[in-house]
Amino acid sequence: DYHIDWDAAAAEKGGYDYFMLKEIAEQPRAVADTLLGRFTEQGWIMLDEVRLSDQDLRDVDKVFIVACGTAYHAGMVAKYAIEHWTRIPCEVELASEFRYRDPVLDRSTLVVAISQSGETMDTLMALRHAKDQKARVLAICNTNGSTIPRESDAVLYTHAGPEVAVASTKAFLTQLVACYLVGLHLAQVRGVKFADEVAAVVSQLQAMPAAVEAVLETMEPVRHLARELAAAGSVLFIGRHVGYPVALEGALKLKELAYMHAEGFAAGELKHGPIALIDQGTPVVCVVPSPVGRGVLHDKMVSNLQEIRARGARTIVIAEEGDEAVTPYADHLVRVPVTPTLLAPLVATVPLQVFACEIAAARGHDVDQPRNLAKSVTVE
Amino acid sequence: DYHIDWDAAAAEKGGYDYFMLKEIAEQPRAVADTLLGRFTEQGWIMLDEVRLSDQDLRDVDKVFIVACGTAYHAGMVAKYAIEHWTRIPCEVELASEFRYRDPVLDRSTLVVAISQSGETMDTLMALRHAKDQKARVLAICNTNGSTIPRESDAVLYTHAGPEVAVASTKAFLTQLVACYLVGLHLAQVRGVKFADEVAAVVSQLQAMPAAVEAVLETMEPVRHLARELAAAGSVLFIGRHVGYPVALEGALKLKELAYMHAEGFAAGELKHGPIALIDQGTPVVCVVPSPVGRGVLHDKMVSNLQEIRARGARTIVIAEEGDEAVTPYADHLVRVPVTPTLLAPLVATVPLQVFACEIAAARGHDVDQPRNLAKSVTVE
Repeated sequence: DYHIDWDAAAAEKGGYDYFMLKEIAEQPRAVADTLLGRFTEQGWIMLDEVRLSDQDLRDVDKVFIVACGTAYHAGMVAKYAIEHWTRIPCEVELASEFRYRDPVLDRSTLVVAISQSGETMDTLMALRHAKDQKARVLAICNTNGSTIPRESDAVLYTHAGPEVAVASTKAFLTQLVACYLVGLHLAQVRGVKFADEVAAVVSQLQAMPAAVEAVLETMEPVRHLARELAAAGSVLFIGRHVGYPVALEGALKLKELAYMHAEGFAAGELKHGPIALIDQGTPVVCVVPSPVGRGVLHDKMVSNLQEIRARGARTIVIAEEGDEAVTPYADHLVRVPVTPTLLAPLVATVPLQVFACEIAAARGHDVDQPRNLAKSVTVE
Repeated sequence: DYHIDWDAAAAEKGGYDYFMLKEIAEQPRAVADTLLGRFTEQGWIMLDEVRLSDQDLRDVDKVFIVACGTAYHAGMVAKYAIEHWTRIPCEVELASEFRYRDPVLDRSTLVVAISQSGETMDTLMALRHAKDQKARVLAICNTNGSTIPRESDAVLYTHAGPEVAVASTKAFLTQLVACYLVGLHLAQVRGVKFADEVAAVVSQLQAMPAAVEAVLETMEPVRHLARELAAAGSVLFIGRHVGYPVALEGALKLKELAYMHAEGFAAGELKHGPIALIDQGTPVVCVVPSPVGRGVLHDKMVSNLQEIRARGARTIVIAEEGDEAVTPYADHLVRVPVTPTLLAPLVATVPLQVFACEIAAARGHDVDQPRNLAKSVTVE
């Protein structure tokens, strides 16, 4: 009963040079598909499979998110959303570390496993370990009927369609959407969000495919910049709050595809060491939080921009439309649409995907099949 | 009433080229000093200041560790120790991120703030945020009477003596010791460890100054290797379990001092992206867990060694004396004494400090005063 119901023909490049470019372009559609049919007329968020009672979910007093690689970055965003909406403490762990650190688990623990393929061995092993200790397990996967969802108590499928490029793009964006939906579902079941409050966030989510599309339409300067920076020795990425995992994801993409020194940092950590790396001309990608949602974070990022500029950094600033405070410190300014604070990663990640893909292509690498990497890591 | 009771004369280089070398050499003494007088005749672990009742500590049902930079890596080790010994869930957070993610805190939360200077602004702000929410606060600091300990409910001072070099060495090792002592104290107060069980760990800790000394006496090949690798473009570091923060710390030292691409990874994450960075001759420092304490971790690290070797990595293996399984895969083998699983970072970190210091000196950098960095970060 293991089957993949995608049409092989759907997995062709469709005019793009690389599957990755095609998959980046498919993101508005993929985000819309993941959202499709999630919100009932009665105002309830629907998962795909639920073998848990609402009471089981109300009993949850701790959430662990386990994942690897890009999915781990989605999990980091999920932590912010789940804690903000539900006030349930939520911890994110690398699946390969989770099992070996004797995590404290019981019947009232919910373990959320995120895996595109549904076959990631470390994540599967973490899930089995959690089940052995009576924890409840919820899977966020892209592949129907794969092992991780089959062994889980509840499943939300990201309807991203097949992802062929090794470096994950549309799978990541749809994992983010899935994480928001899981957070809303938990909040709703527990009674901390009314149907109208959930509906407000759902309609924000429903605006995201158009927002992602808007970003995709303005990527020519990013491609141009990428070609200009293709010979750089390293690129650093900084972010705060939900922009921190975006910075990590941007750096991971560049590592995977361009084999460059690319490292993401929480911007507040710069002064505790990494700022020593900044020299004349070092490119630093700065994921700037909205000036509206959490103004203090925005102010701090502007300070960080000033600091790194003073040390010679060449700043590539990802900032909201209308945010003029960053303009004086931006060597390159990439505008993204205004979004609610928690949803910002859905738009801020996209330029970083395009940037990494273009640098890798300019360096002559096989974008879809980077060296040493496999699409699904089905061994430990 | 703010005073530092160290003699300025004690802060001189004492025959070493750099303060950092002197401070690396002082680590056995610093570790011994941090342990001094901690264990009463009645078998109790003593902190320096405690303005909490034992009942307050028994009420703790969640521990947050907040710190920045190197101290954050000590906190990552503390998480393993505290969860293993007490089974209280423990989360480690970058101080600069902690405040802005709306952490779930209350009277039964213990926040452990780690800061060498006791003046780290982000950590102080995190502590104040925690206190506002009625959490209990315990400080691990090196500077008597500094702001963080003064505002805390309990204090353990690391008696490391003055640290002058910007890159932290002996402060880190003594922070690790302090974290172990806090873990044991919590375990004892809560009744999950008897005095004789605590005594057994204390005597293991008391053996560590000699173990650190033994490592220091065998560092000539590491210095030689460092000079050989001084022109390398990047160095990667991998570890598992408590070796993961050691890998991060080794990479941070190299960033701070040598301004090189140096990045630490959980070894299990390699296949999810970072392994693409490995090319012919890429130096990879592998912090190998003991084959005894957690054999499965050791086996997995041996597999990782084989994988990266197959892709051309030049492996620098930090492994326990007598661990022969790693020998075939080690281009360079650095032996450290056999230690209990949780205490291994106390010895495994030392070669990485020496390595970074020597590479930086060979590249002609000011080891004690790296560019862009300050010793204490007293602004946000």
